[in-house]
Amino acid sequence: MVHHPQRRILAAELPDHVGETVRLSGWIHRIRELKSVSFLIIRDRSGLAQVVITPPYDIPGEESVVGVHGLATANLQAPGGVEITGPTIEVLSEAVEPPPFDLYRPTVPATLPTILDHAPTSLRHPRLKAGHALAAAAVAGFRQVLQAHGFTEIHTPKVVESATESGANVFSLDWFGRPAYLAQSPQFFKQMMVGVFERVYETGPVFRAEPHDTARHLAQYTSLDAEFGFIHDHQDVMVMVRDVIAGMISAVGRRSADLDLLDARLPAVPAEIPQIHFADAMAWLGKDDVDLAPADERALSRWAEEKYGSEFLFVTGYPMAKRPFYTHPEPGRPEHSNSFDLLFRGLELITGGQRLHHYQDYRDALAARGEPTEPYAGYLATFAAGIPPHGGFALGLERFVARLVGADNIRLTTLFPRDLHRLAP
Amino acid sequence: MVHHPQRRILAAELPDHVGETVRLSGWIHRIRELKSVSFLIIRDRSGLAQVVITPPYDIPGEESVVGVHGLATANLQAPGGVEITGPTIEVLSEAVEPPPFDLYRPTVPATLPTILDHAPTSLRHPRLKAGHALAAAAVAGFRQVLQAHGFTEIHTPKVVESATESGANVFSLDWFGRPAYLAQSPQFFKQMMVGVFERVYETGPVFRAEPHDTARHLAQYTSLDAEFGFIHDHQDVMVMVRDVIAGMISAVGRRSADLDLLDARLPAVPAEIPQIHFADAMAWLGKDDVDLAPADERALSRWAEEKYGSEFLFVTGYPMAKRPFYTHPEPGRPEHSNSFDLLFRGLELITGGQRLHHYQDYRDALAARGEPTEPYAGYLATFAAGIPPHGGFALGLERFVARLVGADNIRLTTLFPRDLHRLAP
Repeated sequence: MVHHPQRRILAAELPDHVGETVRLSGWIHRIRELKSVSFLIIRDRSGLAQVVITPPYDIPGEESVVGVHGLATANLQAPGGVEITGPTIEVLSEAVEPPPFDLYRPTVPATLPTILDHAPTSLRHPRLKAGHALAAAAVAGFRQVLQAHGFTEIHTPKVVESATESGANVFSLDWFGRPAYLAQSPQFFKQMMVGVFERVYETGPVFRAEPHDTARHLAQYTSLDAEFGFIHDHQDVMVMVRDVIAGMISAVGRRSADLDLLDARLPAVPAEIPQIHFADAMAWLGKDDVDLAPADERALSRWAEEKYGSEFLFVTGYPMAKRPFYTHPEPGRPEHSNSFDLLFRGLELITGGQRLHHYQDYRDALAARGEPTEPYAGYLATFAAGIPPHGGFALGLERFVARLVGADNIRLTTLFPRDLHRLAP
Repeated sequence: MVHHPQRRILAAELPDHVGETVRLSGWIHRIRELKSVSFLIIRDRSGLAQVVITPPYDIPGEESVVGVHGLATANLQAPGGVEITGPTIEVLSEAVEPPPFDLYRPTVPATLPTILDHAPTSLRHPRLKAGHALAAAAVAGFRQVLQAHGFTEIHTPKVVESATESGANVFSLDWFGRPAYLAQSPQFFKQMMVGVFERVYETGPVFRAEPHDTARHLAQYTSLDAEFGFIHDHQDVMVMVRDVIAGMISAVGRRSADLDLLDARLPAVPAEIPQIHFADAMAWLGKDDVDLAPADERALSRWAEEKYGSEFLFVTGYPMAKRPFYTHPEPGRPEHSNSFDLLFRGLELITGGQRLHHYQDYRDALAARGEPTEPYAGYLATFAAGIPPHGGFALGLERFVARLVGADNIRLTTLFPRDLHRLAP
């Protein structure tokens, strides 16, 4: 049996086949009926192609899947300068319901709830699809930089015995009759793995039982995590963050068609990202507080842009009071920490820092917060066994992409978002 | 402040620095005391290095983390032909507890429960570590092949509204007061995403509330999933599986030191993996059943090895009765399916096949199994919107590595395994 009488070509390959009979397959993106002639716009994974059809014809509705056999004909008016003429059309799968909105409109003509309720179809809109293609490229860039720096990928448990890391906002679960919790981050595991591979990263889901219904909080998101040993302090982590961000932006930059579709402007990544200490930021803001308010982050971002021409700014030395117990204090100024946030276009994108590495420091830090050591037994064993000075960082993928493409709600850059109200599709 | 008075080199780079004063950092893998001289074996992410120390010395216990400054000296007896002499040793972090077993023994001198209870330390044993390094390479190989074939990476929800996919073995969870379930696979989502990207893959955790306490079942594992459209039938999926496996084996093959450490023998991947139809397999086995018993899989594997010299064998055409409702039946023989398992060294490694693609076929398939359509609403919307003939496959990462390195328990190739009894570390 001959499976493929003729090899399928993709829409983007059409210009290489002018004058040939070709076979295209894809979705009917649009049926455009003019007076004497009609156009079928076919969408496949590479883009769009125009097919000329003349009445009478019997074409199924938009989003139906077809195979098109015809002549690739030069036409300067057609997308890519080529269209298919004299087609025979085979219906592979008929759409039995029309899309919830026109997928061929340049902007998405629907409200957020409509988009999300109909995600399997909505995501086919080229603008929504483009954001997710950029996300995939960003993750590839993240991995590529870290691989080149000798990092090893890990896959860690998403179900844990104790709700240790923050206590609040954890999902609880029935584990063969025992209580268990969804992991809020791979933090403890990646630190454990520093003892094994020195340098590790993970790209995976994390879970927050986030009771706030905002445009930037989700109950599940994709966390890009890295952790590595033999650092001097958090400045070494910040150097790595800079390289990772540059690699992600560069990978995203190779998808220029998607960027154009979204009118997304990529930031330049300075060779050295400017930084300001938390205490200096407070002085500049004329405030005295232990955290930055959103308005403070925006003001600092504007300042960095004006002073350094940078859309990125590190804020270092956050107060220990606002950082997790495993954070390394700042030598000589122990109310501050060897930690940082990376602000990007006015919002926090990455959190990271140096961690404690001495066993006794962990015991002391837990005691100081009035926490028992027992729920941390496995984690503490790591430090009892010897761990170098180390640090790391975490970045929320969906938030990164939202910032990059200017999406005003993180749900637009999340595949099938999960939140307080939404568990489907 | 000068952070790094001298750049750190890795153990593996030592041979390039003979005659130079160098700085190494790592764990004290072993302290070997001879009569007049002692050796410190330092372990870093690249391997081992020997340091010569002479009494009197004050060296912390094994697994402590040190910086070593000394002269790289040629010595044919030393690992790599170079050792460090005249060292000064700086203790970066002291191990306050000895390892649960000697990490420097060639084989792991501990039982499985001891290994797992002390995972943060046990995993530092070069043999255990090697398996996880191979796993990372295998995943990189998986992604690389699929990227080259035009696949897009996706990240899908791990919490779902309905326990639809199999009903049994699902973990339930409290989602802001509503019941929800951990996803057993990304199956539905990857099919939905065929409508968006045509070709998608995901590497992420899946969850099975697996009540069986066996050497090859886990409650969480890493599933490598792919799905793609515009196939003729499952044979196209099998061609892709062959390429993916070849890429994974090739990526793993580049880590020869890890393979040697584990005495792992890589299989050859035939240009075309042999296949046998389920009905023919039954005839050959002299049986009449709807599934293969483990002994049957072993017998068929031996047969393929003898007849074709292949450690891989596809079994195609499994009875529809044993496949999920979305499975595409075999044309002309509807009690069989366009599905397959890939056997590797006597065990099932991959399951895949062609899926239904017509909306009405889904409705009929659910009705035939007496299932309501309502819990499947989001999934069914995908097919109502038009989906091409498509198929895909899934592979359990930890099982693949276990098979490759001959581990007799999947827990040995899983980072921090989760099962009926184990939720920590």
